[in-house]
Amino acid sequence: MRQRLPAHSYTQGILAGDRLVLSRAITLVESRRPDDQAVAQEVLEAVLPHTGRSIRVGITGVPGVGKSTFIEGFGQYLANLGHRLAVLTIDPTSQRSGGSLLGDKTRMETLSMNASAYIRPSPAGDSLGGVAHRTRETILLCEAAGFTIVLVETVGVGQSETVVHGMVDFFLLLMLAGAGDELQGMKRGIMELADALCITKADGDNRSAANRAQVEYRNALHLFPPTGTGWAPPVLTCSAVNQEGLTTIWQTIQEHQQLTTENGHWRRRRQEQQRTWFRSLLRQRLEGQFYAQPGMQQQIDLMEEEVMSGKRLPTPAVDTLLAM
Amino acid sequence: MRQRLPAHSYTQGILAGDRLVLSRAITLVESRRPDDQAVAQEVLEAVLPHTGRSIRVGITGVPGVGKSTFIEGFGQYLANLGHRLAVLTIDPTSQRSGGSLLGDKTRMETLSMNASAYIRPSPAGDSLGGVAHRTRETILLCEAAGFTIVLVETVGVGQSETVVHGMVDFFLLLMLAGAGDELQGMKRGIMELADALCITKADGDNRSAANRAQVEYRNALHLFPPTGTGWAPPVLTCSAVNQEGLTTIWQTIQEHQQLTTENGHWRRRRQEQQRTWFRSLLRQRLEGQFYAQPGMQQQIDLMEEEVMSGKRLPTPAVDTLLAM
Repeated sequence: MRQRLPAHSYTQGILAGDRLVLSRAITLVESRRPDDQAVAQEVLEAVLPHTGRSIRVGITGVPGVGKSTFIEGFGQYLANLGHRLAVLTIDPTSQRSGGSLLGDKTRMETLSMNASAYIRPSPAGDSLGGVAHRTRETILLCEAAGFTIVLVETVGVGQSETVVHGMVDFFLLLMLAGAGDELQGMKRGIMELADALCITKADGDNRSAANRAQVEYRNALHLFPPTGTGWAPPVLTCSAVNQEGLTTIWQTIQEHQQLTTENGHWRRRRQEQQRTWFRSLLRQRLEGQFYAQPGMQQQIDLMEEEVMSGKRLPTPAVDTLLAM
Repeated sequence: MRQRLPAHSYTQGILAGDRLVLSRAITLVESRRPDDQAVAQEVLEAVLPHTGRSIRVGITGVPGVGKSTFIEGFGQYLANLGHRLAVLTIDPTSQRSGGSLLGDKTRMETLSMNASAYIRPSPAGDSLGGVAHRTRETILLCEAAGFTIVLVETVGVGQSETVVHGMVDFFLLLMLAGAGDELQGMKRGIMELADALCITKADGDNRSAANRAQVEYRNALHLFPPTGTGWAPPVLTCSAVNQEGLTTIWQTIQEHQQLTTENGHWRRRRQEQQRTWFRSLLRQRLEGQFYAQPGMQQQIDLMEEEVMSGKRLPTPAVDTLLAM
């Protein structure tokens, strides 16, 4: 299963839209083996000219908001419009063993059988940087394989949203009606990152609550500082099970794309994302090299403890580490 | 003027509450000369046991919100209660030449003549990390000099708020009534960092608009995710010129301190801030060493440009840099 193909086989397979090869290439990109990485980078460079042309949409929300149901419904809607879409999920709780893979496929059973959709869970890495690193490259592979919409799902509780926000063109925050317990666990600051809010499960008995929440959030967003892109994040409602509100969401994403393409923010956002990716990778590697020195991790832990307890100041602590 | 004292003279002067010595010690801490830094670190280590016991309050808001007037009024109010307070301002537009020093002293003329208040502008450094680095240490020096409240002022437009949020116990966001042009330029995400919002200039014709804004922001904050500390950020109003609302603000800060002291979040926040300071300093120094290599900055700029234009992927770009 882990037999590696030559780089050009991956490249050809991906560009031909072969999903099996695509999946194997993603596994290669996710591998930490240096020999795998060498081939992975060769493949990525070869497909690079064929990337960048999808609409990248980040979708987040706390557990229970109905992300899987939403993505299943929205994905089918997009597929029925004739789009080819890839769904990448980042699950910080999953292990690299691949357990989440089965889980996700099961979660989105109907969509996973749709010939226009490709679902790929990214197991959480050791670091957020690791997750981001692989997911960014997975997006590129999917684009090269001809997917024109890439949905990146993340759980709205940790730092992963900020990372995902840094790799998509449009960031959709799913919310539940009622601002009570549902907000528990949501990371503060996320609401202000969103390009649109959508109240999910706006059906049945929940419909009027969803409409009330919509008005409340609209009023609240109105009080936020502007995005600086000329875009005012709207508050929408939807019912994935009833297939309601999905058209509006898709229209919203397209309007956002049109506006920000025209005023240059689309390109600027992508360029800044590229720069951030580059800079954080450089930083990560520099830190990695430093931390990897024999005994260094213990020294850092020791210093950190002393700094946290107020016994030592950061500057001499860092001086000591750098002098080692 | 730049004549350096021996370390113990600074230490003794600071612990005796001598403002002149305190000012000179802060200048020393802000200096980039290695010999100054050596003495500065010696002083900081010596005073360390006498630090940490003030209430550190960050105050932010866009230009025009009336920060200086507020701090002048609030500072006088606190001084009249018998507190000794230090006011540190961070001005990203100021130069190291010291021009802002005069400017700030003039801005807070009455407070600057109050024997219980000490005003010190921190000129903006080359980097945000630089600003943070010095301001954190300046807070410690002020605490050692016996100031029991430290107000850190910042302009609510850039990244400096996040940095200042990372060095205070309580983060106060000053706002203007009306959610129109006033919000232009305010950094998104700041509202969700605030421990309290306060609508300024709630006097005269502006009073009813301020009260309306208070209700609107209250409703909006209610929809935010909880802070995770058991604290619900209140929305207040004040008039610094009429000395109205200042009591409530001070009570709010004290209530926050009491609650978070009791539930452990006060201590945890400080510990996390220490750790973040340590980690970002380590990262900064590692990057600094790397960037300082001959010709490296040009290489990095070149790579960054290629990455931003989509010609090159970050991973091989970083590989190339690290192999140099």
